[in-house]
Amino acid sequence: MKASENLAKLGIELPAVATPVGSYVPAIRTGNLVITSGQLPLKNGELTFQGKVGGTGATIEQAAGAAEVSVINAIAAAAAVAGGIDRIVRVVRLGVFVNSAAGFFDQAKVANGASDLLVKVFGDAGKHARAAVGVAELPLNAAVELELTVEIS
Amino acid sequence: MKASENLAKLGIELPAVATPVGSYVPAIRTGNLVITSGQLPLKNGELTFQGKVGGTGATIEQAAGAAEVSVINAIAAAAAVAGGIDRIVRVVRLGVFVNSAAGFFDQAKVANGASDLLVKVFGDAGKHARAAVGVAELPLNAAVELELTVEIS
Amino acid sequence: MKASENLAKLGIELPAVATPVGSYVPAIRTGNLVITSGQLPLKNGELTFQGKVGGTGATIEQAAGAAEVSVINAIAAAAAVAGGIDRIVRVVRLGVFVNSAAGFFDQAKVANGASDLLVKVFGDAGKHARAAVGVAELPLNAAVELELTVEIS
Repeated sequence: MKASENLAKLGIELPAVATPVGSYVPAIRTGNLVITSGQLPLKNGELTFQGKVGGTGATIEQAAGAAEVSVINAIAAAAAVAGGIDRIVRVVRLGVFVNSAAGFFDQAKVANGASDLLVKVFGDAGKHARAAVGVAELPLNAAVELELTVEIS
Repeated sequence: MKASENLAKLGIELPAVATPVGSYVPAIRTGNLVITSGQLPLKNGELTFQGKVGGTGATIEQAAGAAEVSVINAIAAAAAVAGGIDRIVRVVRLGVFVNSAAGFFDQAKVANGASDLLVKVFGDAGKHARAAVGVAELPLNAAVELELTVEIS
Repeated sequence: MKASENLAKLGIELPAVATPVGSYVPAIRTGNLVITSGQLPLKNGELTFQGKVGGTGATIEQAAGAAEVSVINAIAAAAAVAGGIDRIVRVVRLGVFVNSAAGFFDQAKVANGASDLLVKVFGDAGKHARAAVGVAELPLNAAVELELTVEIS
């Protein structure tokens, strides 16, 4: 089954990728790799979750949801450069930065929100190398930021 | 216009790249990619900015200046491995770590100090994928650390 | 001398790589690169060091030891995908995240625990680009997390 068909089955519509206005771009191609910029959990221009994860902040479930929104944005950015999502033949690497409250050690569970969606969309080709860490602060006070590397045909 | 000509026009001289003494090197080539090590805002052997960005620490403008110094060091490291700056045909990725005070959310504006210089030097080929995050601490208490990936001919 | 011979001489046995159960995998190949997931200082299923490095936490020496354990896990993960450690022809990049106490600025010395081992195992081909930063929290409260990129034949 194609990734585009899986997306449709999941009821996910890739958002439009904003036209870049700065010195960096949503994603770039080098050889047959596409690397995205850091993606935030933005939906219709608003952050779905801000602030720390853990402690008095977002729960693991909320943050995993934010990671899912972020990775949908990452897929959209990669697909736009690749010439369509079905040109993506393999997910290579996912880097996940979790805005972590002191004593929050479940960055892996947060990252699963993104990782699991990649496998739902790309099947076995969605399995990837992943690094998930807890950071002090993120741009716009986002709960999560992630970057994606994929291989294209 | 060549990158070397843009550099000259901007009045920027690439610093000498220190001979590596440890187990890691300033930059490495794999295929037609060159990946630099994390670069600090060192100028003539001294950090231009130390400590946190935001709060009572460095301002956005100062930190963006530190990012600019860091990316000049990164260009120098990449150019040394590439066989000269004009062998760099495209900037691929910039990873920016900002030593962030609590409540500082403008990592993107700090990173612009580096991103904007890349476009001044490499033109459209200087546009890149970028991830900017706020970290708890950095080596030598630097305000900024960044790593650069470029494609060479 | 082969990397496998150096490993034996150092008395290091690569641990078995756990069968992946989630949506991500210990390492992945793209072209002639192998990229590992973030590796923790796990030995026989237990973390050798937890908590912050610096301050009242782990010393630099302890944390460098944890980085060494982590990079052995990373080598094992990369070797499993590469078809054996001797298929690794060059170490490309090491990313090191140190769980840093406030005011701890020696992330580079911690990372040396991993970098030095890479050179002991791979010789000159073990020299690599490296980014080491201090993060707020890590999965399972690990002291160190690192990710490795290598080139294979």
